[in-house]
Amino acid sequence: MTFGTLKTLSPIMTPKTFFTPGPSALYFTVEDHMKQALKEQIPSISHRSKAFESIYAECVENLKQLLQVPAHVHIFFTGSATEIWERIIQNCVEKESYHLVNGAFSARFHETALELGRKAEKTAAPYGRCVKQEHIRIPETAELIAFTQNETSTGAAQPLEDIYATKRKYPEKLVAVDVVSTLPYINLNHDIIDTSFFSVQKGFGLPAGLGVWIVNEKCIEKAKSLQEKGYSIGSYHTLPALLDKGKKNQTPETPNILGIYLLAKVCGDMLRKGIDTIRKETDYKAAVLYHAINQHHAFTPFVSDSAYQSKTVIVANTQTDSLEFIQKLKEKNMHIGSGYGSYKNSQIRIANFPAHSKEQVEMLADEIAGL
Amino acid sequence: MTFGTLKTLSPIMTPKTFFTPGPSALYFTVEDHMKQALKEQIPSISHRSKAFESIYAECVENLKQLLQVPAHVHIFFTGSATEIWERIIQNCVEKESYHLVNGAFSARFHETALELGRKAEKTAAPYGRCVKQEHIRIPETAELIAFTQNETSTGAAQPLEDIYATKRKYPEKLVAVDVVSTLPYINLNHDIIDTSFFSVQKGFGLPAGLGVWIVNEKCIEKAKSLQEKGYSIGSYHTLPALLDKGKKNQTPETPNILGIYLLAKVCGDMLRKGIDTIRKETDYKAAVLYHAINQHHAFTPFVSDSAYQSKTVIVANTQTDSLEFIQKLKEKNMHIGSGYGSYKNSQIRIANFPAHSKEQVEMLADEIAGL
Repeated sequence: MTFGTLKTLSPIMTPKTFFTPGPSALYFTVEDHMKQALKEQIPSISHRSKAFESIYAECVENLKQLLQVPAHVHIFFTGSATEIWERIIQNCVEKESYHLVNGAFSARFHETALELGRKAEKTAAPYGRCVKQEHIRIPETAELIAFTQNETSTGAAQPLEDIYATKRKYPEKLVAVDVVSTLPYINLNHDIIDTSFFSVQKGFGLPAGLGVWIVNEKCIEKAKSLQEKGYSIGSYHTLPALLDKGKKNQTPETPNILGIYLLAKVCGDMLRKGIDTIRKETDYKAAVLYHAINQHHAFTPFVSDSAYQSKTVIVANTQTDSLEFIQKLKEKNMHIGSGYGSYKNSQIRIANFPAHSKEQVEMLADEIAGL
Repeated sequence: MTFGTLKTLSPIMTPKTFFTPGPSALYFTVEDHMKQALKEQIPSISHRSKAFESIYAECVENLKQLLQVPAHVHIFFTGSATEIWERIIQNCVEKESYHLVNGAFSARFHETALELGRKAEKTAAPYGRCVKQEHIRIPETAELIAFTQNETSTGAAQPLEDIYATKRKYPEKLVAVDVVSTLPYINLNHDIIDTSFFSVQKGFGLPAGLGVWIVNEKCIEKAKSLQEKGYSIGSYHTLPALLDKGKKNQTPETPNILGIYLLAKVCGDMLRKGIDTIRKETDYKAAVLYHAINQHHAFTPFVSDSAYQSKTVIVANTQTDSLEFIQKLKEKNMHIGSGYGSYKNSQIRIANFPAHSKEQVEMLADEIAGL
């Protein structure tokens, strides 16, 4: 068997296409990069070597360019986005955070703050909606406002303007934005918000096991001020510890070196493709998918107000058991997600990430039409 | 190019042999398993799917069999062993821990407890030695005793009998054992100690980015008692959260799925080879390496007392700058480690893991003789 030529990586040769909202399809270059990493023996290099520092630097530079992250904003690596919920609360909240909740993941972020002993108020929207900007009422004592820009469980997306308006209204509070299932699509202004984060197994089409934490200087200052007040903000993954090692293009612990290497390479590929092209294609594919859902006799979009409809995680109510539709698509080697939690059997969820080609999405839409 | 046949995986075709003490050489089957994982699209499967649960179960079962971990003891996955230092303190220590310190990593474990706001006393041995069993004096108030069985920074290994004797003397205290660079070699009795942990990029010959935490029921009970007392013991990686998901062969977060898959497969390979064979080969290779060091005019073992000499991380003092020797071996495509921290230029460190074949170690010993 030959392996790793571009031919074998084409969707035609891939037995299954994963439209699941994470883990999802691998970006089409990943297999080749993994082969190259093994050839270069990347998994065996020391995380304190120049070779690793160069991979780390390439990854951060590519991410900054792709996501338009200003030079003065930091990028750190963790084990998962779930870990980053914990680290944000530990490092950036002394007593109180405030959470916009519109699904299972934003609820979990809120719960994380409570588990870490903070006071944490929330405003919750019914699932399938977002809290409207005019209804956001933030306690004066809250130090941090947590948004989940794209709720992977419901497909409800908070318009960026809501987030920016909130920050303008409360400039002294830190604003954290969960962009787990929306980057690199969304054009987030990292000069306005204070911190954001994602994991690589969704929009970046990579194997799971790596979280990316984007942090500005205000978050670092907050963490240091908590330390100075005598609070424990963790051990190896405190912001000062991450910054200290990050300045040397290193991590405090032995990290997922292969994951950082693959992220560097895939960001490079996305830069060559062009972020504008990726965004335009995402818009096109989202339109194709919403059209297929709107046309289907048994499907309706869960998020009824199109202003809040996610472009990257498309969720539909199904009149009958969703597992039947999922199973039929599976027989065509197209894997889509079920509803989340209590919606398991009454919804479908479809990921629309850069790894999903226009052709694959068109084929999926055709199959949906035939269901 | 053909890729993935066993022929291409032989050491002869591998350009460099990494004898570095972690990350280190990949176990010889890893490339093949990675190829198979891509073929089976493992990185795209959901961490809530039956397919993942089956990988998780296979990994835990193989680990339990290989490491002789009793059925009633739990195995959990984290991002790194560094994370497990933090989780042990958060989950198993209310106020005070006690640490045996004999190098940089045991010192870091002690420091982690302090950073997390605990009282943490220590008894330190000079680097290159271990605290002798008769000198271990543990405060009555300490809830947990932390051993670093094999100090990766110095090559000093605490005899298991010291650890067991300490547990017998203090049966009501929890005993935690860092076995990061010694498993699967060491035959640890998991019925005596309470918790142990390692990362996969050392003795298991895998890409970094996964920690393995072995935990008995007493640790779980301790974590629950802390929760009941109102303490925060973390969020997603508390012992009760890990146990709750672990019972379903799942993890709280989206984990390093590929890493867990590879660990399952490599443990299977090691089981087929036989743990006794691996242990005997490790003893043989250690003897070859210590012999080469003892015979060399410029090298002496850092750990002078052979009762404390690690079999898996062999550290030698060098009369002249160690980087010269390291460079000469590098020219032969043999990569060994420098000394740790302040010993960087005065020591060499050589890993002796299951991934290192007898032939590779013999070749290295021959080259050392010629230095």
